[in-house]
Amino acid sequence: MEIKWLESLKKRFGSIKTDTLLLGIGDDAAVFAPMESPFVVTVDMLTDGVDFLLEQTPPDLIGRIGRKALAVNLSDIAAMGAVPFSVVIAVALPKEGAAQLADALFDGILPLAQKYNVSIAGGDTNTWSEGLVISITAFGMCTEKGPIKRSGAKAGDQILVTGAFGGSILGRQFTFEPRINEILHLHRHYEIHAAIDVSDGLSLDLSRLAAASHLGAVLFENAVPVHPDAFRMDDSKTPIEHALSDGEDFELILAVPQDVAEKLIREQPLDVPITNIGFFQSELGLWIEKSGGKRQEINPSGYEHI
Amino acid sequence: MEIKWLESLKKRFGSIKTDTLLLGIGDDAAVFAPMESPFVVTVDMLTDGVDFLLEQTPPDLIGRIGRKALAVNLSDIAAMGAVPFSVVIAVALPKEGAAQLADALFDGILPLAQKYNVSIAGGDTNTWSEGLVISITAFGMCTEKGPIKRSGAKAGDQILVTGAFGGSILGRQFTFEPRINEILHLHRHYEIHAAIDVSDGLSLDLSRLAAASHLGAVLFENAVPVHPDAFRMDDSKTPIEHALSDGEDFELILAVPQDVAEKLIREQPLDVPITNIGFFQSELGLWIEKSGGKRQEINPSGYEHI
Repeated sequence: MEIKWLESLKKRFGSIKTDTLLLGIGDDAAVFAPMESPFVVTVDMLTDGVDFLLEQTPPDLIGRIGRKALAVNLSDIAAMGAVPFSVVIAVALPKEGAAQLADALFDGILPLAQKYNVSIAGGDTNTWSEGLVISITAFGMCTEKGPIKRSGAKAGDQILVTGAFGGSILGRQFTFEPRINEILHLHRHYEIHAAIDVSDGLSLDLSRLAAASHLGAVLFENAVPVHPDAFRMDDSKTPIEHALSDGEDFELILAVPQDVAEKLIREQPLDVPITNIGFFQSELGLWIEKSGGKRQEINPSGYEHI
Repeated sequence: MEIKWLESLKKRFGSIKTDTLLLGIGDDAAVFAPMESPFVVTVDMLTDGVDFLLEQTPPDLIGRIGRKALAVNLSDIAAMGAVPFSVVIAVALPKEGAAQLADALFDGILPLAQKYNVSIAGGDTNTWSEGLVISITAFGMCTEKGPIKRSGAKAGDQILVTGAFGGSILGRQFTFEPRINEILHLHRHYEIHAAIDVSDGLSLDLSRLAAASHLGAVLFENAVPVHPDAFRMDDSKTPIEHALSDGEDFELILAVPQDVAEKLIREQPLDVPITNIGFFQSELGLWIEKSGGKRQEINPSGYEHI
């Protein structure tokens, strides 16, 4: 059973051919061609009850769990300004119906991998008596511009974001598009000092970028693009609170020089809106400026992993 | 808490410096230097109840779970004849005492990583309400000899193994040494056609190597090096049955031309014994020859993942 199923998996996975992958699934390890440029590697693990609720997922929507596992990794590759080229996938599957579950997950993984021409180089398939875990390690090639780090922001750089924030739990946490094409266009044509993707919360991830650059950040509350979903959230938080702390928006936060920011805001070269929501400064901390012009320091909020 | 703990982790992980890693933990992805040679990538995920029993592990032995997670990956890199250079690590930790557990795991990971000069390039730390999962993706650089594949065996090649087999569950499943130095010495000085490491069972992994090479294999039962642990197993299986099917020996199976096999058996160039246990043939299937010279086909047995 295992071998037959793995063979079918191998066939499905092997369907995405790339120059970089010399030997795919079926050996002790995958073999990649030499790399002329630096390359980036990231890993993200999704667990039941935290990143998805398997029990509440209808069978025909299980694929989106697999899709999400790949998409969050591609979002990290995007935040580095790199071109994704391959992944390896490890899963721990509940014993009952394991092969069917794996197939359903891969139904969601494959189309996204195909879309970005990302080969599936290897994997590890396990069963156990507990919940679903899916861990993907993704690889991206740097362009001639090199990687975009979190640490490259300068005082005076503007804070730009793609898209809008808040309420991702209503569905966008599964359907979001990793900003691969967007960052590659921006990285090629504009000066980008630093980037991070918003996985744990706009304010939390912004504070991480700022800290990595040894800077503080000032946010204009009114400028933050609040997603319509944030208004549809039925709880005690305000829409802007959702926008600042929900996370899983998987939009990009960018640090760019002021003149480049003005150009980007004017030209709007992407299909998704770019918004200037504040600036970096040498004074540390995360500050928010409300409509009246009053500036106050806030604690970044979002999802803490541990 | 998270940031402080991650900072301490980053410091511990960053202690292993290598030329290949340009940017380690702390960004959206790690950055590696360009690779002049092909490189290999493998992933292995360990789960509670299958690869270890957390509840039955005394606190001071938790490190060996982490060590095992790294060692099984290094064993895969060894089976490719490559030099390990880095890993990324993803964990799903039970919420209760998560940080302490992670620290204990890393206590076991670090010394082995240091021993083989393997950088820890990144990770993903998660907590959830279920059991411990640890997934490591490992990277290895090919030597000028290239990777050793499963598919390279030729009819007439001899089957050589390092070490001895069976009863690994009595402790060797945690303490085994990945055969990195051994394979690198052999790959440099001898003609090795194919290799696989024994994770799921000597007969099962041998049959996988044979199948990948479109060959059958004949084993001499009396030649199989049976580990003393296999004799200490207190169940209905015979020691040779343990040796053939237990798995987690993490020794190497090699396919080498007959003259090279003879040279290796004579020279014994490793600290661990090399034994000739059979040969590959064009007739498919896995065959075992008992002491009386009777040859019979057997079903490979070992651990099936799904």
